Amino acid sequence: MSKIRTTGGGTKKEAIIKKAAMLFCRKGFASSSMRELADLVGVEAPSLYNHIGSKSEILQAICFQVANEFNNHLIKINKTTLSSSQKVETIIRFHIHMMLHSYDAVFVANHEWKQLADPFLSNFLNQRKLYENTLVSIVEEGIIKKEFKKLDPYVAVLTILSAVRGLEFWFRHRRNIREKELEDNMVIHLMNGLNK
Amino acid sequence: MSKIRTTGGGTKKEAIIKKAAMLFCRKGFASSSMRELADLVGVEAPSLYNHIGSKSEILQAICFQVANEFNNHLIKINKTTLSSSQKVETIIRFHIHMMLHSYDAVFVANHEWKQLADPFLSNFLNQRKLYENTLVSIVEEGIIKKEFKKLDPYVAVLTILSAVRGLEFWFRHRRNIREKELEDNMVIHLMNGLNK
Repeated sequence: MSKIRTTGGGTKKEAIIKKAAMLFCRKGFASSSMRELADLVGVEAPSLYNHIGSKSEILQAICFQVANEFNNHLIKINKTTLSSSQKVETIIRFHIHMMLHSYDAVFVANHEWKQLADPFLSNFLNQRKLYENTLVSIVEEGIIKKEFKKLDPYVAVLTILSAVRGLEFWFRHRRNIREKELEDNMVIHLMNGLNK
Repeated sequence: MSKIRTTGGGTKKEAIIKKAAMLFCRKGFASSSMRELADLVGVEAPSLYNHIGSKSEILQAICFQVANEFNNHLIKINKTTLSSSQKVETIIRFHIHMMLHSYDAVFVANHEWKQLADPFLSNFLNQRKLYENTLVSIVEEGIIKKEFKKLDPYVAVLTILSAVRGLEFWFRHRRNIREKELEDNMVIHLMNGLNK
């Protein structure tokens, strides 16, 4: 039986989760088996269970890891003295970076959260709602401070989050992407639409 | 056995397709049975086959009907003497209207096209590619005519199509929507981001 290879000094559990995100992203959570995951990691299936309890536990790890990264970033940005416009721009750029550099995990969190069981499902949805509400309040503040046009802040947040999520389609169809150009163009479009 | 009820003067086949869009949207194409569809239509399953050959045929009808509506609108708009900005705004508003008023069918076409078999699958994907390319060329023309900012037209089209598609999330989470306000706000955000 081979050892579980880790890259970049992560733990074995982290290495398994990374491979699982690839697998779930490609095949869907429901259609992926622990045996396939073991093959991908390069070990026998039973040895996976030395590191992780179940397939569901892996999905929880992926979804909450992604949620944590987004939440921590939002909290950090919201505490700064940046203008509302700078805050929103930084958040858009973070979403694009996450899509570009943690694509598998973000895709799984975006699509497979429905497969979480409670209490994880409710917790995940509550965190997402809170995230959206915080973003709405940042946009509201920008409108009050007359940095932004007088738009409905919910619609503005929906427009922004949907646009960055649309990078999924880009990924599937055109991999030869100039990342910086894509990011800057989307930021200009979305921020100019919002800024006064 | 009851008769298939039609509303608004449509054919029986149209009535079946409308109910099928509701069913596939709610349960997914793969998980929906002809028996469930018959229940929803209010007839015995065998009588469905007097009007339609198979479940796959219904999916084809939904996907190509939606594709036709979008394509016909785009061709019509592209022939007019509207400015590039007016063209893009009209197209965005049409996407929003389709999402608001033909939600089930648009959702099925957006998500379940993968279940089409060839030659329908390739044909559908080609039509979509052509649609996107035409939209890109309208944006390119607007950039050349200096109506639009000098943005990457592909990224601009991705941003626009993703944003309008994001209305799916809105639908699932907040049904008490003031349609006109939603539409105008999204149009202002996306068009101001694009216009010079």
